[in-house]
Amino acid sequence: MPRIDNAELRGKVMSADEAAQLIPHGAVVATSGFTGAAYPKALPTAIANRAKDLHDRGEPYQIDFLTGASTAPDCDGVLAEADAIRLRFPYQSDPSMRQAINEGRMGYFDTHLSHTARQVTAGFFGKVDVAIVEATRIDADGNLIPSSGVGNNVEFLDAAEKIIIEVNSWQSEDLEGMADIYRIGAAPGRQHIPIYATGDRIGTTYIDIDVSKVVAVVETDLPDRNAPFKPIDHVSKQIAGHFLDFLEDEVRFGRLRYDGYVMQSGVGNVPNAVMAGLLDSKFENIQAYTEVIQDGMVDLIDAGKMSVASATSFSLSPEYAQKMNEEAAHYRKYIITRPLQVSNHPEVIRRLDLISNNGLIEADIYGNVNSTNVSGSRIMNGIGGSGDFTRNAFTSTFITPSVAKHGAISAIVPFASHIDHTEHDAMVIVSEYGYADLRGLSPQERVPRMIAIAHPDYRPLLQEYFDHAKATSPQQTPHDLARAFEFHLRLAETGSMMPRGA
Amino acid sequence: MPRIDNAELRGKVMSADEAAQLIPHGAVVATSGFTGAAYPKALPTAIANRAKDLHDRGEPYQIDFLTGASTAPDCDGVLAEADAIRLRFPYQSDPSMRQAINEGRMGYFDTHLSHTARQVTAGFFGKVDVAIVEATRIDADGNLIPSSGVGNNVEFLDAAEKIIIEVNSWQSEDLEGMADIYRIGAAPGRQHIPIYATGDRIGTTYIDIDVSKVVAVVETDLPDRNAPFKPIDHVSKQIAGHFLDFLEDEVRFGRLRYDGYVMQSGVGNVPNAVMAGLLDSKFENIQAYTEVIQDGMVDLIDAGKMSVASATSFSLSPEYAQKMNEEAAHYRKYIITRPLQVSNHPEVIRRLDLISNNGLIEADIYGNVNSTNVSGSRIMNGIGGSGDFTRNAFTSTFITPSVAKHGAISAIVPFASHIDHTEHDAMVIVSEYGYADLRGLSPQERVPRMIAIAHPDYRPLLQEYFDHAKATSPQQTPHDLARAFEFHLRLAETGSMMPRGA
Ligand SMILES: CC(C)(COP(=O)(O)OP(=O)(O)OC[C@H]1O[C@@H](n2cnc3c(N)ncnc32)[C@H](O)[C@@H]1OP(=O)(O)O)[C@@H](O)C(=O)NCCC(=O)NCCS
Ligand SMILES: CC(C)(COP(=O)(O)OP(=O)(O)OC[C@H]1O[C@@H](n2cnc3c(N)ncnc32)[C@H](O)[C@@H]1OP(=O)(O)O)[C@@H](O)C(=O)NCCC(=O)NCCS
Repeated sequence: MPRIDNAELRGKVMSADEAAQLIPHGAVVATSGFTGAAYPKALPTAIANRAKDLHDRGEPYQIDFLTGASTAPDCDGVLAEADAIRLRFPYQSDPSMRQAINEGRMGYFDTHLSHTARQVTAGFFGKVDVAIVEATRIDADGNLIPSSGVGNNVEFLDAAEKIIIEVNSWQSEDLEGMADIYRIGAAPGRQHIPIYATGDRIGTTYIDIDVSKVVAVVETDLPDRNAPFKPIDHVSKQIAGHFLDFLEDEVRFGRLRYDGYVMQSGVGNVPNAVMAGLLDSKFENIQAYTEVIQDGMVDLIDAGKMSVASATSFSLSPEYAQKMNEEAAHYRKYIITRPLQVSNHPEVIRRLDLISNNGLIEADIYGNVNSTNVSGSRIMNGIGGSGDFTRNAFTSTFITPSVAKHGAISAIVPFASHIDHTEHDAMVIVSEYGYADLRGLSPQERVPRMIAIAHPDYRPLLQEYFDHAKATSPQQTPHDLARAFEFHLRLAETGSMMPRGA
Repeated sequence: MPRIDNAELRGKVMSADEAAQLIPHGAVVATSGFTGAAYPKALPTAIANRAKDLHDRGEPYQIDFLTGASTAPDCDGVLAEADAIRLRFPYQSDPSMRQAINEGRMGYFDTHLSHTARQVTAGFFGKVDVAIVEATRIDADGNLIPSSGVGNNVEFLDAAEKIIIEVNSWQSEDLEGMADIYRIGAAPGRQHIPIYATGDRIGTTYIDIDVSKVVAVVETDLPDRNAPFKPIDHVSKQIAGHFLDFLEDEVRFGRLRYDGYVMQSGVGNVPNAVMAGLLDSKFENIQAYTEVIQDGMVDLIDAGKMSVASATSFSLSPEYAQKMNEEAAHYRKYIITRPLQVSNHPEVIRRLDLISNNGLIEADIYGNVNSTNVSGSRIMNGIGGSGDFTRNAFTSTFITPSVAKHGAISAIVPFASHIDHTEHDAMVIVSEYGYADLRGLSPQERVPRMIAIAHPDYRPLLQEYFDHAKATSPQQTPHDLARAFEFHLRLAETGSMMPRGA
């Protein structure tokens, strides 16, 4: 089948450089792209080159750049290096971009991913000038067949004044049928989302667009660029083991069954280890209602342990992305990609009683969680969908090694230096030392559980802080605000949260 | 009509003291009661007396006490004073109870109200031994007609081993028809909640119970006890004015219409002023999808400005409670009381595109909000439903005077000493100096807007902190953790956040 099956749109094929000329300084640009998949692969470099040229000539050129989530070096990376972005929204994880943000060269607004499409549509970011969306194919009617992710594409295409399509022939044509495109209507009169089980399909396999808004079609043939996972290390294996203990205990308490566990899984090396652990578990008919499809889910599908995975995008290692592309006709029987608004929607998440599982930067002794700002200031990636799932899960869990940077940093601290998930939201926190079940506990009852999963070297320091705080401020949540950040201050001063000589 | 129309249950009538004997030390007791309405009025005092007797004899007696939300002096108050509670859940606002919690005599677990019923049902607090629920009437089939609120009654009655009913003849029989009782089913296979407009009724007007679980029926004739509102002061009027400016601006931006504004309103004096402001506004057909019915809503209904109000309970001044009781047959055409799970459910809140409006203790320069712990430690009331509405509103707003305690405390601080609503959640913050619209802004872009609504005396101090933080930590969220709590520390030391001589 031709990749561009619509005559009118075939007439709009041009080079990326030509298309980039259609994007003026100051434009609000909204693109496909979610955790390294389905992002535009030609335009960003062309825009970055244009920015560099203009900057060299002393002319201003910056755009506001809205996506689904993080993209890749040849998208976020090149644009950040060219200082081509004024404001970025809503999630990023590219090292160059992170640096640009933390150096103040670029603004970054970070919010819950389930809210992003609605906020854009409502004009929180002004009007969307151009949508740039990757597709696998354009059908005869001008509909787009999504590639390796959906993200905010539907709402961006609906909202944008102009549309640029990248048709990427690297993406398998067999991806057609995986996407389930559904529009959430407007209020008043908005309807419910009729998903009752993870695998329910409620929409079309293509995105219908207003063809008259398309100003350019650009052909590409480039792979998605995701980082490979690190091999599963000992600590990750231990964390995975404790997470499985938690699941087993849930079964014992009658809150979970071996059949039909609905999971959400954040990205990262530890979540991948958890999925590897599930391979050898008693759980069957596992279902993922989650944000991204990861290697571990593919393994679970292959092993017959996972019956269905619903997400908004892939987040696969290069090896697995290749495999997915080759066997898309097979995997589309098990995998559904949905608009981000749907994959992360509180309505559906609450309905499914799922168990969420995400990484964290640090948690404090009362169970407040920092997912975004190292030492309160330096942005790492963003909150992503972790709030959508944590807040609406039946049980929310977080997983983390007890220390970072070879022990110089404790993941459990007296007071979290930034808070993304509050004490009202985090229920179970897992490290290589066990799991802290905070459900139903008052703040002070949580402290011993949190200290028990801290690294043994840090336990006496945390205990001493709590004892001191309780002595000076014996209230609901004992704190001595003069000492609350002492771990972070010591780190800044000495390079370690551990006192010298301790 | 007889208040106890069922023969079997009439046979179980006994005194409160007799009924209290059925509640052993260590019991998990779950009751009706929500913001001073519909709480049991006889049993708590009887339980408190029993506790005091046993304590006098050196015997232990404490219960775990779960409710809908706060209650009143003759419920939370007497139990706290008798040290009769081990763990309290999930919201309280009684001065004696607050003191007992902050003195460590009582545990308190505080979570989002929409989650509480599910958490109890799932056994996060162990099994529920006894439910004590106030009703207006018991019908011939043994069904309960709810009184001035529903709260968690349905789920508590379903979960409890034993049931004690208080039939309160002070409550008007005309309340019958106001409640809309709906059970959210279990997963897998859980259905959507079929509410599409604020006024949709989806259930029954009574709560059907397992009559065989009833161990006692106690007759009472006592009023709900809510505090009267303070007269609307100048500052509240100014805040209300700026909130109305915000609404008018939303209309101008095409995000809101004069017809059909859906509001949520937290409790307190300032929200009441906002509703008074709406009386003279251009808004018509105002609808409240909110947690509690307040005086201001009654006034809006009387004025023909509010077409329907949906909540889980009343939170009325004594005067308005009296009026509601006398004219319940009239008001039930406009008012619906729902189970807390439904009134606060993310699914419905998101569907309705409402604008939430809640009070706060403090907010920081980046828009993180503290609703619960003064100076990070001392619990005020709890998070209540503020997270349910803030997270799921189309636009979330908070209102606060710029200072508390005659200027000694600034409501805008460098770093919030406790965080209940994150920078990802709070969108618009209103003080008597204007409204700070944080939507679409990066953390650093928010700072000038937040400083602009701070009290003029505190503005230079906040600006100096930010400039300093940006100089020492020029990253996404500039902070100097060594100084982050300087306002709070100064307050603790000197009694004021303002430096001496400033
Ligand atoms: C929080 C988060 C960064 C943790 O990532 P992870 O891969 O699970 O965990 P890791 O332990 O491998 O940590 C990642 C990096 O953060 C660093 N880090 C972790 N904790 C740290 C801390 N307390 N202080 C400083 N750095 C820390 C690690 O050292 C590592 O850095 P490196 O790449 O330079 O080695 C990641 O989970 C995240 O971005 N979460 C927010 C979004 C989210 O939850 N998305 C899922 C949504 S659906
Ligand atoms: C935060 C909250 C306590 C503010 O209450 P309010 O009535 O709107 O505001 P007020 O300004 O009248 O403050 C109430 C009290 O807190 C005190 N207070 C306010 N800010 C303070 C601060 N930063 N530090 C110390 N005390 C403070 C006030 O002085 C006042 O105390 P007083 O009663 O001794 O005079 C209240 O909104 C709340 O409990 N919120 C959480 C739950 C919620 O939002 N529920 C609505 C849900 S649906």
